[in-house]
Amino acid sequence: MTESEFIALMRGIASDPAARGLEDDAAVLDVGGRTLVLTHDMIVEGVHFLPGDPPGDVAWKLLAMNLSDLAAKGARPVGALLGYTLGAAEWDRGFAEGLSSAASGFGIALLGGDTVRAPEGSARTLGLTAIGEASGPVPSRAGARAGDHLWVSGTIGDSGAGLKLAKAGVPGGRALVERYRNPRPRLEAGKKLAPLVSAMMDVSDGLLIDAARMAAASNAAIRIDVGLVPLSGPFLAAMGGAREARMFASSAGDDYELLFAAAPSRSQDLLALAQETGLPLSRIGEVEAGDGLRLCDGEQAVDLPKRLGWEHR
Amino acid sequence: MTESEFIALMRGIASDPAARGLEDDAAVLDVGGRTLVLTHDMIVEGVHFLPGDPPGDVAWKLLAMNLSDLAAKGARPVGALLGYTLGAAEWDRGFAEGLSSAASGFGIALLGGDTVRAPEGSARTLGLTAIGEASGPVPSRAGARAGDHLWVSGTIGDSGAGLKLAKAGVPGGRALVERYRNPRPRLEAGKKLAPLVSAMMDVSDGLLIDAARMAAASNAAIRIDVGLVPLSGPFLAAMGGAREARMFASSAGDDYELLFAAAPSRSQDLLALAQETGLPLSRIGEVEAGDGLRLCDGEQAVDLPKRLGWEHR
Repeated sequence: MTESEFIALMRGIASDPAARGLEDDAAVLDVGGRTLVLTHDMIVEGVHFLPGDPPGDVAWKLLAMNLSDLAAKGARPVGALLGYTLGAAEWDRGFAEGLSSAASGFGIALLGGDTVRAPEGSARTLGLTAIGEASGPVPSRAGARAGDHLWVSGTIGDSGAGLKLAKAGVPGGRALVERYRNPRPRLEAGKKLAPLVSAMMDVSDGLLIDAARMAAASNAAIRIDVGLVPLSGPFLAAMGGAREARMFASSAGDDYELLFAAAPSRSQDLLALAQETGLPLSRIGEVEAGDGLRLCDGEQAVDLPKRLGWEHR
Repeated sequence: MTESEFIALMRGIASDPAARGLEDDAAVLDVGGRTLVLTHDMIVEGVHFLPGDPPGDVAWKLLAMNLSDLAAKGARPVGALLGYTLGAAEWDRGFAEGLSSAASGFGIALLGGDTVRAPEGSARTLGLTAIGEASGPVPSRAGARAGDHLWVSGTIGDSGAGLKLAKAGVPGGRALVERYRNPRPRLEAGKKLAPLVSAMMDVSDGLLIDAARMAAASNAAIRIDVGLVPLSGPFLAAMGGAREARMFASSAGDDYELLFAAAPSRSQDLLALAQETGLPLSRIGEVEAGDGLRLCDGEQAVDLPKRLGWEHR
């Protein structure tokens, strides 16, 4: 069964408005006049991380990917529950140290969880529930409207390039590998962006596939100019800036940047925010009437690649 | 690394009072004058459920074991996040149906979660985060005081006997197997007991081991009269009521009953509550000064068995 078939079956018991139809990055629960944002993400050995990855980095990533969902909803982190599969003592110790350092760095407390032991030879499956609180409206991924501009924070493709270099055993590209191993969720930017955007989500499976999901949820079309996708200096040095490299960056995933749509009238505020926070915000496309994702490179139309990003992980 | 070693490492980042030092069944978070109770439990194929178990029962159990933690804190269920490992379509469909039926039955909405795919041959690991709300004080497992009476709800050992019969392929004992497959968390009783008790937890790993944990958390000793442990008619029919059967019941686990300590002055209220709800509440022992767990059978001291219950699952 595919993920979307399973989610379709689950929708019947997700009728509470807090569930947002299971179509958003997180659940949004009103409690006593305050707004909680709840998300749960899992990672599996051999799928989301490599068996040889340092355990501290795996912990960091598990927390960061959940916090990135909170960032996309403009929420500050409140607490986390960990679902942990015990293994070799050294790995467990490294994981605990990495989680401690990431949790302190991101200002989130561990509130509870569960530890289990899996049968010998099983891939380790780790889960984390992050609880956040939003102080204003919580953008969904479904709010993009024709006429909005499409923006993305930071740079795209660094993590994907880092993974590629690490897998190939190519030395150098330390900054890229670091982006893959220790992604930094855009929590501060998310809080400041939330009141300015009409839709927001994080880029985790790939810019193109995540933009296509925003278009589908919003009943709108999205056009991205791949020539405008922001690439970092280290990325350009390792991969170049040609079309092929841009398409790689746009479908590689693990960026944990923020993708958002905003009315053209917000552009000044957004550029001022980028200046204030030092986090680049780049306009990469438009929301249009219709449906689906279209690509261009300046004036020239570009075919969609076969693979837009990670689909079933 | 053992579970308790890992939890000790985690305690450094669990300094928020909501975490209750990672020593309780659930986290307790004050939000806008309301009290949320949060718990996360996992189950692993081959450890917590048998590969041949009906998938709908696995779903039921995953939800029920989390709701049992809410029950022990006197909380009503609000919502759940599911961490699911996709597998064969038929199994996934059965799981979805079981979860739907359990969620409707217990009055809890699915709010979100994540689905992943594990490498071929891996044991499936499933997790669920349950969010509840308490309308009064939330009992911890650490509040038992010398002089309190120790009580348990319902009957003990049914589920363990059901598992034993199912494993041995012995026909009959349907009520017992049903208790193993479809345990019913004591949500209604939990809410009504919460204001009356000094400590409460659910019995999931075994009455004896869970009572020992309550004693340790409370810095007190607990004495249980195994002759007073309540056994059901079906249990007595299948296993008898001799000492051996009572020790089996008391260490078998998966009961999902409520174990609580209460001042002697509460006894009248507790018996009235049992009458009102139709759920038996049985006084099975005492809280005493000192530490550890002691057993007796009437006037006679009884040695602790080697195994008090499930320790590392």
